[in-house]
Formats: sequence, structure tokens, C-alpha cells
Amino acid sequence: MPSTTKVRVFVSLKNGVLDPQGRAITHAIEGLGFSGVTDVRAGRMFELEVDASVTDAALDEMASKLLANMVIENYRIERVA
Amino acid sequence: MPSTTKVRVFVSLKNGVLDPQGRAITHAIEGLGFSGVTDVRAGRMFELEVDASVTDAALDEMASKLLANMVIENYRIERVA
Repeated sequence: MPSTTKVRVFVSLKNGVLDPQGRAITHAIEGLGFSGVTDVRAGRMFELEVDASVTDAALDEMASKLLANMVIENYRIERVA
Repeated sequence: MPSTTKVRVFVSLKNGVLDPQGRAITHAIEGLGFSGVTDVRAGRMFELEVDASVTDAALDEMASKLLANMVIENYRIERVA
């Protein structure tokens, strides 16, 4: 029986790319009365259930081809124990 | 000059909540020819730049009131060094 592991892929906008969603959240936080939050950047996260046989190279390819838009986004892959 | 720290908030769907986006991604990964990915759950991530004075309680309140929909989502807060 092949064991599965959990993999997280974090996708975030590259530096310099405008983030209107993050801007809106920053203003909304102020509007709620909180102070001290100077910036918010919005990103995405994917939790994959994968067989132990899936290689890092394959995960890289999935992330760059499907999960992230490499023109404006970066990704980071984390294998969970 | 107050120092700022980075805080990450991860928002994911609660167990049992259907995730059509994750489903679509799972199928798309298969369609690209990869095997071994049995499930994908889609979530969101927020990177906040906050003053060191912002308390954990305040972050909790921001996450639960604004960033996550507590009916169907959970959140996890991580302070980055």
C-alpha cells in the first residue's frame, strides 16, 4: 500500500506587482479600527495529498505550470512530515 | 522608530466542506499527465507587515473577522522572525 504525504504549495505575487486585493484588505483592517498593519499581500495556498513516489521535480512542474502564474507570481513548496 | 514584523495568515476550508476548485485542480494535474496526486485543497494566504506592538489577540480578531469565513474556513497565524 503506497503511503501518501501532504505537500503545501504557497503562491505569492512577485515584488513590484500591484496587489489591489491586499490594498483593499489593508484599508478594511484600518476601517475595523486596528492600527499597526502597514501592508497586506494576498496569496494562495494549495494542500496536495500525494503518493510518496511523487518527486520534487514533478511537484515543481505542477506548481509552475498549473498553480502559479510565473509571470507575476512565485511559489514555494513545503513537504509536510 | 517602531520595527515591523511579518505575519502570515493561512486560511483553509474546514474538513467536510466541498472544494470544487481543489477538485478541478486535481483533475487538471491528471490531465497534464502527472500521477500520484490524490487530492488538492485550495486555500488562501495573507502576508501582513505589522508593527511589533500588534498583539496576537488583535491578529486573531483580524483573521476571524476579515480574512477567514469562520463558517466554512479555519485559519492559522504564523509570525515570521
